[in-house]
Amino acid sequence: MMAEADIAALLLTTEPELRYFSGFLTQFWQSPTRPWFMVVPRAGKPIAVIPEIGAECMSRTWLDDIRTWPSPALQDDGVSLLIAAVREAVGDGNAFGVAMGPETHLRMPLLDFEQVTRALALEIADATPIFRQLRMVKSEAEIEKIAHICGIVSDVFEAMPNWLAAGMPVSEVFQRFKIDALERGADDVSYLVGGAGPGGYGDIISPPTDTPLAEGDILILDTGSVFDGYFSDFDRNFAIGRADDASRRAYATVFAATEAGLDAAQPGNTAADLFRAMNAVMEADGALGNDVGRLGHGLGMQLTEWPSNTAWDETPLVPGMVMTLEPGMTYAPGKVMVHEENLVIREDGPQLLSRRAAAELPVV
Amino acid sequence: MMAEADIAALLLTTEPELRYFSGFLTQFWQSPTRPWFMVVPRAGKPIAVIPEIGAECMSRTWLDDIRTWPSPALQDDGVSLLIAAVREAVGDGNAFGVAMGPETHLRMPLLDFEQVTRALALEIADATPIFRQLRMVKSEAEIEKIAHICGIVSDVFEAMPNWLAAGMPVSEVFQRFKIDALERGADDVSYLVGGAGPGGYGDIISPPTDTPLAEGDILILDTGSVFDGYFSDFDRNFAIGRADDASRRAYATVFAATEAGLDAAQPGNTAADLFRAMNAVMEADGALGNDVGRLGHGLGMQLTEWPSNTAWDETPLVPGMVMTLEPGMTYAPGKVMVHEENLVIREDGPQLLSRRAAAELPVV
Repeated sequence: MMAEADIAALLLTTEPELRYFSGFLTQFWQSPTRPWFMVVPRAGKPIAVIPEIGAECMSRTWLDDIRTWPSPALQDDGVSLLIAAVREAVGDGNAFGVAMGPETHLRMPLLDFEQVTRALALEIADATPIFRQLRMVKSEAEIEKIAHICGIVSDVFEAMPNWLAAGMPVSEVFQRFKIDALERGADDVSYLVGGAGPGGYGDIISPPTDTPLAEGDILILDTGSVFDGYFSDFDRNFAIGRADDASRRAYATVFAATEAGLDAAQPGNTAADLFRAMNAVMEADGALGNDVGRLGHGLGMQLTEWPSNTAWDETPLVPGMVMTLEPGMTYAPGKVMVHEENLVIREDGPQLLSRRAAAELPVV
Repeated sequence: MMAEADIAALLLTTEPELRYFSGFLTQFWQSPTRPWFMVVPRAGKPIAVIPEIGAECMSRTWLDDIRTWPSPALQDDGVSLLIAAVREAVGDGNAFGVAMGPETHLRMPLLDFEQVTRALALEIADATPIFRQLRMVKSEAEIEKIAHICGIVSDVFEAMPNWLAAGMPVSEVFQRFKIDALERGADDVSYLVGGAGPGGYGDIISPPTDTPLAEGDILILDTGSVFDGYFSDFDRNFAIGRADDASRRAYATVFAATEAGLDAAQPGNTAADLFRAMNAVMEADGALGNDVGRLGHGLGMQLTEWPSNTAWDETPLVPGMVMTLEPGMTYAPGKVMVHEENLVIREDGPQLLSRRAAAELPVV
């Protein structure tokens, strides 16, 4: 792919990029202080250009060429080491590649990047298509990790009716969910969002409040839990005490939309086909709209990856792609209903990684 | 500060930047798919330019001007909305500001940023000093949140000898730590790293292994736990069964270094003074080096913030700054010992937010 794109070397700066090429796994990325770099030449192993604090951890990966400096540094925080490594890897090539397209960013100070590009005086190519194509199709080892965390999270969701009750603050629901997931073997519950409200919830990205659950509330929990650096990403809905008709109907609609998505999740179809299959069901049932902007996405080392189940994403589905189906709709002003399942595309169709949600809105 | 720097508007793209100016708190940032923007004019409230999925959550902040688009979008993922908002906020000014300096990055696709800067045809100023100066000094409300999570984490560490034992896999130690922190009221244990080894550990940024703790191991856990969006960041060391002399001595040295750091944590001193005070103790006791690159740092909405306790960081300590003291040293080949405490600088000196570690290496 690099040869086709006339890219002599890739420059990586983000956690998933470095981890994909090396296996380097640490939560230390949460500190914004230090930049971390990797340079991938067209032939041979990647070169790590990293702060000294990471040398020991990086030495346990398959990489041999690990160049370090004492970071943070005031004047030259890895910049000259990086310039030398890129120059070496590019050789007599013309261009190095960096991810510059959708869903990417450059994790290094802009002023340092300007210094690197000025010093190298090379063409800079957008390497997004290369990273996307590589990472979209998962190996069996990757699929196994995602399946494992999806199984744990399915267990946690299925046990919720045993302890969920009116009167419990939503923040306590979140806490119990996290503890149960950890006890069942999740490494982390990195992402847990949701909401609850009488006759439905209004958004799905907020932290919990201390408001106690009340009879007639609809509750959603959506989690990205992690095992060995790989994410699950699916949600479940519960009615507290009783379910109103509008919420029941909306639940049935998004459930049916997911079924349509599963039918469409065949190799040869596209992400847009998934969107159209799910969207048709929701439009036919009178959906008022969808604020999420898409009906699912890729899944793996990040909570969301390419492609997007939208009308415009014609990425073909191929075996090994791990995807979410996430039909959601507004069914009354300020009320949304969102379902989500995780699956892997196989030769003969979808294999669910999450255990399928109940066909009717569960009342707890 | 904007007027002094001749900056007519600030463009924000990262989670802490947006949250600092709005209070917008969500874990949704873990999805790399969508860009989020805020534009801060010289006068008046910030303008949010965000994906529709965040409108409801953002509407609960103090902002009034919330501009949204259905994201992800193939062609124009917020770019034209952003250009219009910056243009409006800049008015007849010359420059807009973006964080481009140390410990910052731009969280949007580079190709989109190029489009924005081309369309605006304005000067771009490095706004890092503005963000740094604002965020380094915490309000009492911020200090209270950090103190709260530091108190919870102190309780968790102090309870560890009740359950820590030889034979327990390090991964189980991590799991029990996380569960205890959640049970005591931490929102999340976003960061938990550490290691264990016979007579000492070799690095402090790795995820846990399943290796059981053995007699003579030295164990370190270092955590950034979170309450209401604010971090603690400190560690604790334990000897399993017995402690060898070298580890005991190294522990005593870094404990004494922390004491020296506490003595130096006075308004009017600098971050470099903290470094020098701690480093002198470790050098006098024969430290072989330090791979961490600094001896502590600022703390708040992020696990690590400005300034850095290094020889070169002459940032003055002023009341309201929340800092870590993190003396660490290599005391034998491949063996490091790191201590860490959290404090706030007050008029009359440091106020500890973590409860002080034991003066001698605890043996469990």
